[in-house]
Amino acid sequence: MNPSTPAEPSADGRGDVLIHDPSLRDGHHAVRHQLGAEQLRAYAEAADAAGVPVVEVGHGNGLGASSLQAGQARLSDDEMLAVVREALTRSRMGVFMLPGWGTTANLRKAIAHGVDVVRIGTHCTESDLAERHLGFLLEAGVEAQGVLLMSHMAPPERLAKECAQLVSYGASAVGIFDSAGHYLPDDVTERITAIRAAVDVPVAFHGHNNLGMAVANSVAAVAAGATTLDACARGFGAGAGNTQLEVLVPVLERMGYRTGIDLYGLLDAADIAERHLMPAPPTIDSVAVVSGLAGVFSGFKTRVLDISRREGVDPRDVFFELGRRQAVAGQEDLIVDVALGLRQGRLD
Amino acid sequence: MNPSTPAEPSADGRGDVLIHDPSLRDGHHAVRHQLGAEQLRAYAEAADAAGVPVVEVGHGNGLGASSLQAGQARLSDDEMLAVVREALTRSRMGVFMLPGWGTTANLRKAIAHGVDVVRIGTHCTESDLAERHLGFLLEAGVEAQGVLLMSHMAPPERLAKECAQLVSYGASAVGIFDSAGHYLPDDVTERITAIRAAVDVPVAFHGHNNLGMAVANSVAAVAAGATTLDACARGFGAGAGNTQLEVLVPVLERMGYRTGIDLYGLLDAADIAERHLMPAPPTIDSVAVVSGLAGVFSGFKTRVLDISRREGVDPRDVFFELGRRQAVAGQEDLIVDVALGLRQGRLD
Repeated sequence: MNPSTPAEPSADGRGDVLIHDPSLRDGHHAVRHQLGAEQLRAYAEAADAAGVPVVEVGHGNGLGASSLQAGQARLSDDEMLAVVREALTRSRMGVFMLPGWGTTANLRKAIAHGVDVVRIGTHCTESDLAERHLGFLLEAGVEAQGVLLMSHMAPPERLAKECAQLVSYGASAVGIFDSAGHYLPDDVTERITAIRAAVDVPVAFHGHNNLGMAVANSVAAVAAGATTLDACARGFGAGAGNTQLEVLVPVLERMGYRTGIDLYGLLDAADIAERHLMPAPPTIDSVAVVSGLAGVFSGFKTRVLDISRREGVDPRDVFFELGRRQAVAGQEDLIVDVALGLRQGRLD
Repeated sequence: MNPSTPAEPSADGRGDVLIHDPSLRDGHHAVRHQLGAEQLRAYAEAADAAGVPVVEVGHGNGLGASSLQAGQARLSDDEMLAVVREALTRSRMGVFMLPGWGTTANLRKAIAHGVDVVRIGTHCTESDLAERHLGFLLEAGVEAQGVLLMSHMAPPERLAKECAQLVSYGASAVGIFDSAGHYLPDDVTERITAIRAAVDVPVAFHGHNNLGMAVANSVAAVAAGATTLDACARGFGAGAGNTQLEVLVPVLERMGYRTGIDLYGLLDAADIAERHLMPAPPTIDSVAVVSGLAGVFSGFKTRVLDISRREGVDPRDVFFELGRRQAVAGQEDLIVDVALGLRQGRLD
């Protein structure tokens, strides 16, 4: 799609790490999906100049997700894709889609805009939901990856099985997302090792920083055989943010991995992101610590705080109980149940 | 000194980690040493309530350092020590001193205020500068620790030798500071292992977060045998900040270590710190990344930026060259040399 696509790192080159940058997609969560065209352009151009291999763009929840329920983006998918496509000369353009939010029609549109890499995401135990879309992309000849969200909720063997299934559907790469920022490095090592043993395609890791471990977890992932790492400028993303891109890259290079990214260009891009994209870089607040420990999707934050206040219970107790109940996105009703239960002392 | 000193973790209890909290000392660097009595009191009371074992207080550079050169603190050492002493019921009170900035007279005053733990810090290769003060404290019967700053500048064997020397002077514990935030976990493992092999006293690690590794480095330190970890609420400290206390503690507990600290109490203390002590929690900006990579003291930041602007050179080049020249605090004149050299192309 992109005539000047940079060379992929050699699949067997042990030292090569492919950086996938979702700043303009995951970062959208931190600004209620309100990035404008000038912001997208400024960052995409800077990332492109630095040689970031993949620049992902879109609503925080991916293609087709702009809605009252998930938050209405300032720009349409069409507008976002057009701006970023135009800004990129070397970097490949990526998009993300959650089946249910997005459909084949959205994929068609993205293809028309010249998307290079499409990621289809599902909950970590529901890879079958990606089958249709991965099949469609395979047929369309577009690079299609399958990624598993909230991956801490499944044991290594299960993740390996789900990843193998994604490959059978046509995924040319698979990945796990630490959506709740729950992992410690050994957790990542175990899971990536299991997945690597089960599939022959590149494996990606996407970290969040709730427990201050995003960079260390990413390093653990490549040490265990992952070859793609997600990271965002200044960690731009919901809650405690993602792995910080301009920190991760020089750390990897110092350890002997090669990213092909220019450090000063990357730092410039991160400065642009801080100045123009976000009100402030993400930090790890107390709610982020608790939701990371509890393994709860950080998107629950506002609702947990609101309901806890209303019911007069400690939001931290609510998070830990949601974690025990293995709550997943879409189960927001559980928050009220848990808060009421705590108020009535049923859970103590 | 403190009648209600909490029990120390058993020296041989493999799972116990003693948390040493310098928020009210290292954090001072982030606010030009301007914390007032109400701020010190609010945080000290909250840390005490959470069961934080040691609360360190003072000017960022320690006892006696308030000056035009290092920055004048809002409160005198006497005022700071009196407020914190009064606020603590269970936690022990710590102070820090750099020989040269502080003298025996300052130590006498701290003892009169009932200080429980005194740390004498020197550059990593100059432990002999701590001899007199450690000897004085030993005689006075006050717990005295020796800590090595900018410890990445010396190889493991040298640090081990310096630590053994600190013990010979009377230090009841020793430690290494990653003042520049330069370490990756393997660096820490190597150094703590070497020190543990050389001394029979508890070993401490004090991290900074320039490369996003403060928590991971601290975990590596305890895995290698350190039993004391420094950490600050929200990472409150200069530049990229210190290891984030309320993140580190639950991570340690999850890994099976015991800190004796109450999680909710600790999160409350961190919330108080964020609300009342700092303009904003520290984040990792581009200068912090570069100074961490270069291994340069982050206190150089303002001067490097000013001089680079004046001379029309890239401050990042200045940092890397300062790192190559192994610049240490006190060598601020080097910044001008380096900037001029870069401008004249002598260093390219």
